[in-house]
Amino acid sequence: MNTGRIYGVGLGPGAQDLLSVRADRLVRGAAHVAYFRKAGRNGQARAIVEGMLRADVTEFAMEYPVTTEIPLSDPRYNKALAGFYADCTAHLRALAGAGSDVVVLCEGDPFFYGSFMHLYTRLKDTTPIEVVPGITGMSGAWTATGAPFTWGDDVLSVVMGTLPEDTLADRIAHTDALVVMKIGRNLPKVKRALQTAGRLRDAWIVEYAQMPGQRVRRLADVEEVTPYFSIVLIHGQGRRP
Amino acid sequence: MNTGRIYGVGLGPGAQDLLSVRADRLVRGAAHVAYFRKAGRNGQARAIVEGMLRADVTEFAMEYPVTTEIPLSDPRYNKALAGFYADCTAHLRALAGAGSDVVVLCEGDPFFYGSFMHLYTRLKDTTPIEVVPGITGMSGAWTATGAPFTWGDDVLSVVMGTLPEDTLADRIAHTDALVVMKIGRNLPKVKRALQTAGRLRDAWIVEYAQMPGQRVRRLADVEEVTPYFSIVLIHGQGRRP
Repeated sequence: MNTGRIYGVGLGPGAQDLLSVRADRLVRGAAHVAYFRKAGRNGQARAIVEGMLRADVTEFAMEYPVTTEIPLSDPRYNKALAGFYADCTAHLRALAGAGSDVVVLCEGDPFFYGSFMHLYTRLKDTTPIEVVPGITGMSGAWTATGAPFTWGDDVLSVVMGTLPEDTLADRIAHTDALVVMKIGRNLPKVKRALQTAGRLRDAWIVEYAQMPGQRVRRLADVEEVTPYFSIVLIHGQGRRP
Repeated sequence: MNTGRIYGVGLGPGAQDLLSVRADRLVRGAAHVAYFRKAGRNGQARAIVEGMLRADVTEFAMEYPVTTEIPLSDPRYNKALAGFYADCTAHLRALAGAGSDVVVLCEGDPFFYGSFMHLYTRLKDTTPIEVVPGITGMSGAWTATGAPFTWGDDVLSVVMGTLPEDTLADRIAHTDALVVMKIGRNLPKVKRALQTAGRLRDAWIVEYAQMPGQRVRRLADVEEVTPYFSIVLIHGQGRRP
């Protein structure tokens, strides 16, 4: 019997026809799929492929033991997640060892801030594993704004809303184009950092990019909390003939 | 007669099966395609779709009047390109006005440092125009390295090899993960900037990512000039359980 292979497949920003042709074939053909989700939720990756899976598919939902209940800085957070990733890895290795291929469904691009990376590093030395890149959520978001994003010699900085406010403000003040990911409850902090950097008026927020419910607004007009996967953008204004 | 529509279609990093399903359908169905290329060359965008086009397709090759013969800082460079983009725009507008849809083939993602943006800004107020995001060349490159790229709170900086050496060194010293695009003849300068920032040993160079001839090497080991579309990378080392 041959060993199976684990595929980390980038699904892109959310529309089914923005999967790559390679990803589309792997997802539709998969006998085993796995995906991360918050306990009690369907999960965004699973939602993207709704209607695409084989009728006889076996699903492995990997439910985070914690998400935002424990601060990232608490040692219990790392310990809980390390155990969780070890368990997921053991299950995937066993499936591959029994000859099954498994498609791990990854939002966006697997190697770009993706949870799949935690499985990849634990599996790669023992199990055949392959990554299919995807369209990033940020590409989906800047396309949704209807304005080109980076020009000429523009510097692009990609930062997480989880960073400290002063770090964010400093990064925002010293870049041409900007992407801020992991927004959610960090939105007020991100807005203050943009204000400090003098760039709040240039900022856009994109919610549900390339999905039903897509919404593009000037960030200065937004007061309420937005989804975790919202993306804040500032367009570059570089050289153009 | 209805007005036609211009589609700026991201082709991704180079492999045909890394086109999105939406892009694949548009490219295979197109009666008119347009693409940029250097005079006398086939063009990378056109090469990616070889064998996918309709037998009766009409092709519009948009040949840059200059590429690297005139420095970017010379006013003649801007003037030549502005006239060129105006001519291309006029041709596309005429095709759409006559009822034809046109698929403009774009390497990577159209709104991410793409030449298509120069057409888009000139057409968008007069002509129906739509953009299909693509997998970026940098996603193709970091996937090719076989190592996850950005973790946790990593800051990613994307910079162009065309920037001045001291600007590059400063940017490289103050980021976690790094992407340098537009390499080619800028390679020696980029290497010096990495050395100044103390990070040359962490840098990789990826040539022909996701294409035949793909090659991943430690940048410190590379002496010769590499293709313009090579990508230099430093992986982030951020938080991970």
